[in-house]
Amino acid sequence: MADKVILLDFWPSPFGMRARIALAEKGIKYEYKEEDLRNKSPLLLQMNPIHKKIPVLVHNGKPICESLIQVQYIDEVWNDKAPLLPSDPYARAQARFWADYVDKKIYEVGSKIWRTKGEEQEAAKKEFVECFKVLEAELGDKHYFGGLNLGYVDVVLVPFYSWFHAYEQCGNFSIEAECPKIVAWAKRCMRKESVSKSLPDQEKVCGFALQMRKRFGIE
Amino acid sequence: MADKVILLDFWPSPFGMRARIALAEKGIKYEYKEEDLRNKSPLLLQMNPIHKKIPVLVHNGKPICESLIQVQYIDEVWNDKAPLLPSDPYARAQARFWADYVDKKIYEVGSKIWRTKGEEQEAAKKEFVECFKVLEAELGDKHYFGGLNLGYVDVVLVPFYSWFHAYEQCGNFSIEAECPKIVAWAKRCMRKESVSKSLPDQEKVCGFALQMRKRFGIE
Repeated sequence: MADKVILLDFWPSPFGMRARIALAEKGIKYEYKEEDLRNKSPLLLQMNPIHKKIPVLVHNGKPICESLIQVQYIDEVWNDKAPLLPSDPYARAQARFWADYVDKKIYEVGSKIWRTKGEEQEAAKKEFVECFKVLEAELGDKHYFGGLNLGYVDVVLVPFYSWFHAYEQCGNFSIEAECPKIVAWAKRCMRKESVSKSLPDQEKVCGFALQMRKRFGIE
Repeated sequence: MADKVILLDFWPSPFGMRARIALAEKGIKYEYKEEDLRNKSPLLLQMNPIHKKIPVLVHNGKPICESLIQVQYIDEVWNDKAPLLPSDPYARAQARFWADYVDKKIYEVGSKIWRTKGEEQEAAKKEFVECFKVLEAELGDKHYFGGLNLGYVDVVLVPFYSWFHAYEQCGNFSIEAECPKIVAWAKRCMRKESVSKSLPDQEKVCGFALQMRKRFGIE
């Protein structure tokens, strides 16, 4: 049976981008279905009745929810090429630790930058830079977080690069000035087609963020 | 080389209990080190510099942090007996989904029951019961979440059973009356020595919670 893969997604979602990159790394063709989050499709509600959130990966009719779980699933099912998680259990645990760190910190603190202003925004910017400095230390002199090849942590983190311009414009700061190694790493990732074709343009994401700021009445 | 395993833990921590159960299921001897969370040991700070939290599993000198990652690590390293995660990728993704659900919901909503009062507490009780009803539906007629054998989701969820009496006393409600299937499942788990010897007595946990309520000035 040929695999039928569908991704229910929303274009600026860094979580959706993770699944897109993982599928691209494995060379899996899939049907991309854009969701309107204010009017969710019956398929989304049926496939993710617990959280009702994108992204949902639907593989031969069966749903896989939550982006970290999707990336691990993709890595386990299509294990003949481009391994994302290392094979050594300790290295796997370390990769999972850093993916969990990204998951717990970056989205929330990044969102605070573009959704708030004043003191709250300043605190978010400070924490954002601190988190990325921790990640820079973990990256060290490695090419990717995964070493010589793009790995799990890279797939989990690099989607936020598409939001960097939005964070910078809304927060009036330069991420490259604060965390040059992270920006250099992100640019290395972007040289891979699996990444560059999975991430939306930074200007487009920034326009989306500014539009949302206006809608939330933040000025 | 004989494995040297240390667990840095705090006795009422449901996260620490997960590692304890997983190690017991695998029959691994380890050194248990109780931490004073108001005066953390140099070893804890050295082994978990990012989060500075228990539990930390130290295996031959190398730290593994975050309880879900620890349980997966234990399952991958000692893979000769008592498998916790299923081998099929889809079943693994489902187990990870439910473990993630427990992780995101139960601790926080449970904590709210014993740390708050009045309307906030009532809302927490309602949400707690709703979450467990979702879990009851997932359990269905199975013996364990893992099927015929104790599995990943069981290991991740059952530690909260040691807190049930605390939730009930602080919240003045009966979990068994609301979610009888979950209590029956927890009692089945407790018939396993790996579980019963890893969980503290419910009365002792309740005493701890009441003492903390007093310290926080909640009356």
